[in-house]
Amino acid sequence: MKKDFVVTPWEVKGDIDYDKLIKEFGTQAIDDKLLERIKKHTKEIHYMLRRNIFFSHRDMNWLLDEYEKKNKFFLYTGRSPSGNIHLGHLVPWIFTKWLQDKFDVELWFQFPDEEKFLFKDNLTLDDTQYYFKENAYDVIALGFNQKKTHFLVDTIHANLMYKEAIKVAKKITFSTTKAAFGFTNDMNIGAIFYTSMQTVPAFLPSVIAKKNIPCLIPMGFDQDPHFRVSRDVITKLGYYKPAALHCRFLPALSGPMKMSASEESTAIYTTDSPEVVENKIKKYAFSGGRETIKEHRKKGGNPDIDISYQWLTFLEEDDKKLQNIYHDYKSGALLTSELKQILINKINGFLKEHQKKREKAKKQLDKYMFKNR
Amino acid sequence: MKKDFVVTPWEVKGDIDYDKLIKEFGTQAIDDKLLERIKKHTKEIHYMLRRNIFFSHRDMNWLLDEYEKKNKFFLYTGRSPSGNIHLGHLVPWIFTKWLQDKFDVELWFQFPDEEKFLFKDNLTLDDTQYYFKENAYDVIALGFNQKKTHFLVDTIHANLMYKEAIKVAKKITFSTTKAAFGFTNDMNIGAIFYTSMQTVPAFLPSVIAKKNIPCLIPMGFDQDPHFRVSRDVITKLGYYKPAALHCRFLPALSGPMKMSASEESTAIYTTDSPEVVENKIKKYAFSGGRETIKEHRKKGGNPDIDISYQWLTFLEEDDKKLQNIYHDYKSGALLTSELKQILINKINGFLKEHQKKREKAKKQLDKYMFKNR
Repeated sequence: MKKDFVVTPWEVKGDIDYDKLIKEFGTQAIDDKLLERIKKHTKEIHYMLRRNIFFSHRDMNWLLDEYEKKNKFFLYTGRSPSGNIHLGHLVPWIFTKWLQDKFDVELWFQFPDEEKFLFKDNLTLDDTQYYFKENAYDVIALGFNQKKTHFLVDTIHANLMYKEAIKVAKKITFSTTKAAFGFTNDMNIGAIFYTSMQTVPAFLPSVIAKKNIPCLIPMGFDQDPHFRVSRDVITKLGYYKPAALHCRFLPALSGPMKMSASEESTAIYTTDSPEVVENKIKKYAFSGGRETIKEHRKKGGNPDIDISYQWLTFLEEDDKKLQNIYHDYKSGALLTSELKQILINKINGFLKEHQKKREKAKKQLDKYMFKNR
Repeated sequence: MKKDFVVTPWEVKGDIDYDKLIKEFGTQAIDDKLLERIKKHTKEIHYMLRRNIFFSHRDMNWLLDEYEKKNKFFLYTGRSPSGNIHLGHLVPWIFTKWLQDKFDVELWFQFPDEEKFLFKDNLTLDDTQYYFKENAYDVIALGFNQKKTHFLVDTIHANLMYKEAIKVAKKITFSTTKAAFGFTNDMNIGAIFYTSMQTVPAFLPSVIAKKNIPCLIPMGFDQDPHFRVSRDVITKLGYYKPAALHCRFLPALSGPMKMSASEESTAIYTTDSPEVVENKIKKYAFSGGRETIKEHRKKGGNPDIDISYQWLTFLEEDDKKLQNIYHDYKSGALLTSELKQILINKINGFLKEHQKKREKAKKQLDKYMFKNR
């Protein structure tokens, strides 16, 4: 039986029933036919698509129709700065980079540095502006094409964005935000307005280019309500409805819920040292193993509830390796401690490279910032 | 008996009971003691103060305390562009110029070009941006000190203003805007957010100067609800509560209500030709005269309800002249047609000069625009 769950842009909790969400949000499941169609252009299928980590979409067939008519799309995704980046944040961005490379398209990356300031009592604008930079280094470290990637920061690019945001805002009532986000009358008026700012990058490139360009938004499913509200509004402003690809959440180390950056023990940060990574996984990673080694060898573990295995499905690109791990764990040949060590090695290997690139990124930030032409 | 009336930032109608408004809004009447105190610094008392056209205030004694301690204030007023400027708009600005000259202070003049776009279905942003320029020419024509006057345009200065507006917005709930402005759930989320932008110039000069500077806002009384909401918020952000001076509305030509720019027949625009002015006043100005000349000569007219006379109290600086007109009209010595001619001459004399200066202003706009230092 499924537990209750909540998925809004500001709260994700519980054991999420993704099929239920697809129905509730009115999106489409990604099926084999769509995967084949994507493969026609990308030659290969990213493991996050193969494994149904990206599992839902809006209007992908329309987007590919346009692409095949030489009407190229741009990508839009983002990060609301409020804390350090953990592995869960990287999931959609790793996939977004693959999309950028395979389709050779522009990426607009928004850092709405006012969002968490407006939604969290204890965060100042100085805090979110500090985290914008810290977070941007992680984005840059992933290797996005510098010439085709444009960072938008709401308070820095307000001259460009506010003017467009009010056009969006004029077409959204408070009633609509109540229905979509569950707002009450106690909500502050900045938080109420905010969704307008998140809508802007879905059509701003069209405003700048003075022609209508299709938009594809890869994102965590929790962000979908913003676009459920704004898709019709964007059409009324004369631009294409954005297409979307939605991914599942990397579960928390301690069990099946979205990894929350605010809980040290449930997340691994991109700046964690190898020792911290090792300790966290050994201490907190929820295990699908048996009570004793003897019992585990005899009856085998349960990879389907084991978080170390679940994490490897998000991080290990090699299907064959992953399959072997699955079977070995299930048969009891692989112990929980050994499975955890595989994950530790995988993450520390990744972070060693990432942290080097992240250091270099500190000098590259300015080059990624969008300069109004 | 008084009729019902409504005074909000977006609607003023009915025969306004200003005493009732003072109680309702919680402001103070301007009394002789305050006038004397102002006169200590200004040497003379502006006719709009003498005649109780500016009739209400907030915290003027505190402001003068600070001024006397050499803590100079700045002035903040504005214009929400949505149509052409009529004489009613000029009333608080003429007085604001006097304040600027007498106290030798900076003036921040806001043109919130998104406001009426958000509040009126049929206005586009192009419309309001067009009217911003048209309106700015009128402001410049009044002769504000160019070196001490700074225009802020919300969509042009969004980089500066949005960041401050969200700090305001975080401290105002939708419930508060419902109570202050009568908003319903059908209100669009840009309109709900807007009051935050109108609050910003009340403390932005302090942000820019990096020190706390007192602020005085001369305004039509309909704008007071914005600051009733935001005065406490501004304090929480660490700045002084703005002081305020409130003026009455120039009545419509056709009778006692605020002159509405949307009704051609009730307003005189700064761009009206002498012939148009003459025709409008002859045709529409509500008269306190008698049915026949004979009856008028015998019983006299009623200047207290005569709009031509009322308008002269706003426009004729000379008390003596005004008194004579009052008595002559009341005695029947002055006919309605003669009274109207006095007003026509007064307005056409003023507009002749104003229109010349307004033409020159078209080349001066850039010099008044605030440049971020």
